Amino acid sequence: MLASSAQLRLRVGDLVGNRAVARRAIEAAAQAGARLVVLPELAASGYVFTDKAEAATLSEDLDGPTVTEWMGLAAEHDLVIVGGLAERGAAGALFNTAVVIDPSGLRASYRKAHLWDFEKEIFNAGDARPPVIETDVGRIAVMVCYDLEFPEWVRLAALAGADILCVPTNWPLAPRPVDERPGEVIRAQAAASTNRIYVIATDRCGVERGVKWTGGSVIVDPDGFPLAGPVSADEPALLLADIDVACARTKALGERNDVLDDRRTDLY
Amino acid sequence: MLASSAQLRLRVGDLVGNRAVARRAIEAAAQAGARLVVLPELAASGYVFTDKAEAATLSEDLDGPTVTEWMGLAAEHDLVIVGGLAERGAAGALFNTAVVIDPSGLRASYRKAHLWDFEKEIFNAGDARPPVIETDVGRIAVMVCYDLEFPEWVRLAALAGADILCVPTNWPLAPRPVDERPGEVIRAQAAASTNRIYVIATDRCGVERGVKWTGGSVIVDPDGFPLAGPVSADEPALLLADIDVACARTKALGERNDVLDDRRTDLY
Repeated sequence: MLASSAQLRLRVGDLVGNRAVARRAIEAAAQAGARLVVLPELAASGYVFTDKAEAATLSEDLDGPTVTEWMGLAAEHDLVIVGGLAERGAAGALFNTAVVIDPSGLRASYRKAHLWDFEKEIFNAGDARPPVIETDVGRIAVMVCYDLEFPEWVRLAALAGADILCVPTNWPLAPRPVDERPGEVIRAQAAASTNRIYVIATDRCGVERGVKWTGGSVIVDPDGFPLAGPVSADEPALLLADIDVACARTKALGERNDVLDDRRTDLY
Repeated sequence: MLASSAQLRLRVGDLVGNRAVARRAIEAAAQAGARLVVLPELAASGYVFTDKAEAATLSEDLDGPTVTEWMGLAAEHDLVIVGGLAERGAAGALFNTAVVIDPSGLRASYRKAHLWDFEKEIFNAGDARPPVIETDVGRIAVMVCYDLEFPEWVRLAALAGADILCVPTNWPLAPRPVDERPGEVIRAQAAASTNRIYVIATDRCGVERGVKWTGGSVIVDPDGFPLAGPVSADEPALLLADIDVACARTKALGERNDVLDDRRTDLY
């Protein structure tokens, strides 16, 4: 199964323009033969809001224009699409949400549970575990950006049967030593190998209101090595990689070890 | 504080020879100004035992010659020494143990809790959490090799206040893509950054009864980047790195985040 990660250049506040950028990326992925497309976090709205009021004007319902368009594209191209938007909740609450859409429609929505920096002023944190959805291309789990830095959260997805963990992200560029990969990529690699799952993290490129994005999109295999990426460039990119979900369904390391069964559940 | 990782070439079964190799490495580290020396897993005995009977003949008590020699060297050179040996337990039980020794003597012993491969035929698994010991050079935690692959275990050490997680290892060489670091090193990096602690993993080099070692010793900072190593060579090495334990005592990421406080303890 060909999977893809679509690193995008987006503009905060430009709902119509961003939808078009995402649509073109989804169509390009489909044309390349991909059956799964992962888009960035808050791909509909952009990320660096001035305040909660602005974020509210850029939020959508889960039957709004973004999800509706992605549902149409998933059905038209026989795709699974995972991507992020600002979700309008009840009573003025906003959520940093990612959706899983397949040809049958909206399969799951997930609200980011670990909020980063200024998000704490804007979004409510989700209270539900990362969903794991049976699709035609495998069991798809989803979480958002900083969620991936919590090994406990990744473990829950793996224990729930995830084959492919899809992680829409917006990684602000952090300083790092020359010749080192972004720390976020390292942690995505470790998340994959400690659970023997695939991880697809899709980042952004460009600069938004002074925040430069890392452009570190990557597709990681269950051994923890990149199949495609990290992009490591400040430009849009479409990563493609062949994924065999059977590789994520054995957790064995040799004859006597198993990354899940070897946990000392008597001790933690 | 100058810390060190002493990657060694050892021979299974050669207790006297291995003790001499370890002694010379400890003395070299002290001469270089190190206050902390981390030795490999089972540094006293070697690793690839033919069976439990052989391991038993190579096991020692915690007041045996290896610990006694390391206690003398720690006192003589004002060092903290962390290293591994096959521990003779009660009723014929054997443990894959690491000790923490400072100038005052044996401060802690830890029995590997997650056993790798053939170890399951030889050793009993430990049932105690990784100890965290207050020393003159910082709060030292210890675990052994495969233990480090379980993020839950590392988290327990961090929550108990560890500044520096010392990990005696014997990493069997596994295939990996060209230009990729060993997966074990990647996971050590992620263990450090997700907890904002230092990690010192000390591996071996050479070949033992057909098992080739990775030679991946590394000293990682709380951002998850190597301060020294990974060695990535089949030769003995003494890695040295300046460690400021204050860096491990703030878990903050910017003004609004904290790698420990941001855990959703209501959900896991």
